[in-house]
Amino acid sequence: MALDGLTSRLEVSMAGSVLVSGGCGFIGSHLIDRLLLRADLEALVVVDNLWTGSRQNIAHIADPRLSLEIQDVESFRSDRRFDEIIHLASPASPAWFMREPARTIKANVGGALNLLPLLKPGGRFCFTSTSEVYGDPLISPQPESYRGSVDCTGPRSSYDESKRCTEALLFEAQRVEGLDIRVARLFNTYGPRTRTDDGRAISNFINQAVTTGILTVYGDGSQSRSWGYVDDIVDGLERLFWRDDLSYRGPLNIGNDNEVSVLQIARFVCSLVPGSSIEHHAPLPQDPTNRCPDLTLARRVLPGWEAKTGYQDGIERTLEWVRKEIAAVEAAPGAQ
Amino acid sequence: MALDGLTSRLEVSMAGSVLVSGGCGFIGSHLIDRLLLRADLEALVVVDNLWTGSRQNIAHIADPRLSLEIQDVESFRSDRRFDEIIHLASPASPAWFMREPARTIKANVGGALNLLPLLKPGGRFCFTSTSEVYGDPLISPQPESYRGSVDCTGPRSSYDESKRCTEALLFEAQRVEGLDIRVARLFNTYGPRTRTDDGRAISNFINQAVTTGILTVYGDGSQSRSWGYVDDIVDGLERLFWRDDLSYRGPLNIGNDNEVSVLQIARFVCSLVPGSSIEHHAPLPQDPTNRCPDLTLARRVLPGWEAKTGYQDGIERTLEWVRKEIAAVEAAPGAQ
Repeated sequence: MALDGLTSRLEVSMAGSVLVSGGCGFIGSHLIDRLLLRADLEALVVVDNLWTGSRQNIAHIADPRLSLEIQDVESFRSDRRFDEIIHLASPASPAWFMREPARTIKANVGGALNLLPLLKPGGRFCFTSTSEVYGDPLISPQPESYRGSVDCTGPRSSYDESKRCTEALLFEAQRVEGLDIRVARLFNTYGPRTRTDDGRAISNFINQAVTTGILTVYGDGSQSRSWGYVDDIVDGLERLFWRDDLSYRGPLNIGNDNEVSVLQIARFVCSLVPGSSIEHHAPLPQDPTNRCPDLTLARRVLPGWEAKTGYQDGIERTLEWVRKEIAAVEAAPGAQ
Repeated sequence: MALDGLTSRLEVSMAGSVLVSGGCGFIGSHLIDRLLLRADLEALVVVDNLWTGSRQNIAHIADPRLSLEIQDVESFRSDRRFDEIIHLASPASPAWFMREPARTIKANVGGALNLLPLLKPGGRFCFTSTSEVYGDPLISPQPESYRGSVDCTGPRSSYDESKRCTEALLFEAQRVEGLDIRVARLFNTYGPRTRTDDGRAISNFINQAVTTGILTVYGDGSQSRSWGYVDDIVDGLERLFWRDDLSYRGPLNIGNDNEVSVLQIARFVCSLVPGSSIEHHAPLPQDPTNRCPDLTLARRVLPGWEAKTGYQDGIERTLEWVRKEIAAVEAAPGAQ
């Protein structure tokens, strides 16, 4: 993929200094790769506590403009002010945020509250929200105007509600102070640099297929998702976050609107890894039955953007990456 | 009203030290009055930044167990740990929270995050949530299981979403750590000690009636609310927050389920103050069309509790208080 193609074509803002929270994460690190292609970028500060992110995700970068601050975003202090702040810091996998709900709320809401004063006057604050703001949706596909069906006392609520509350903070700052904000609602995303212990379906299936050979499907697997390959999703973020000439600043659904069941994904992974098989486990608590973005608005606001990678293609590329990672670990000195 | 009646009858916990955030506020100060009737209470620390609360609301108290800390709840520091924490700090009137949305989120979410570590092991954390978690509800009355219809990007979202997110924080702490929590969802509450510039319907109407004589009704006034007189509401809080023997800890609707339109309230106030009249103004943004608690659960969990004060009686008592306040101000030395 020609990463430099889009950036040179878009009319992007004069960035100067950019802060990215969660830049060592799965999506964050892909966004960092794109940011560093920007000629107008003078300094890029990544704030990450490496809770779910990994140094390894940005280890390939040798750009003097990049600096990494290993700190909690909710207590990060800096004398510096930034032209753009991109707030991605948060676990995104239920397995992770359900284990540490208070920390999840601190990262999202506390993080945004702490970062806002670090923005230069006239600066831009970008936030990756989530399709989880729709909860277990009663309509499909979900347009941005849908108010959602989230149980604010349920086991997924730390993530869902802290994303909703951070949206509230930003849209209210836009209304009251005229803050330049960009808010994306990301649907399921997968691809290279997902943690092996991430816990979400595609990475789970692939890692299970190449290790134990037994793929865990929760419930009957009929629950559906729209699976977005990370390159497509980050392509959408780039267009939403970096362009000056947008009249609409969010919330904007970004995802793949081809809805596929969890079971179908598991079967496809099995077909790629001979000898692997599926095992059904009890359903996860409050696992949404469906999730599919209405992309009408995205197609209007981000003309030319499309999540074009089909799940077969995306899964094959992710599998290839996982196999290379395993090979690299095994080849490393001291590997057992 | 015999304030000491209930407390002596209930089997209450051995409180020891209690922290109340927002204890100088409208509801908070009434709750303080009740807390100080508890013989088991050794120390009561009120944390209040006097944003919407007032020193005047607790000026009648001369109890050595009470101490006031004038500080923001989200940054309050203490070496002391508490047996019970009751977190009420938040503006509750749209006029106030819409002016300072970030501060509203800080008070609710930041406040809860900051107070949780101040609880002794085995202590109890109580929170006043709100019927606003239901947004502009699509069903009526609203049971606690209703997931709500809140626009998390709208002009009321700082309050609604920060209450929802704080609920999430507490219910997740209950799930993960077994924290003893109590969460009430309060519906519209009115009565003595509302600020004259509070901005909500009943206090607005009464203050307008006795000053300008012109009552402002937003829209046609057909929007309905269930108006809870403060004594009834605090009576419910007392039962939910102080009893040890509750199997259900929230969320629990507490309110009056007699739904009455805003216009009917305005007309009743006019009937009490000769010469006053109604003026219609443009509707408020995203003003809910209706709001009525389903009290099925409250009646089961808090047997004997009932919001028994009718709006006529409650409004007359509030009007009497407002008149006394005005008379006291006018009689004060230096009054003009």
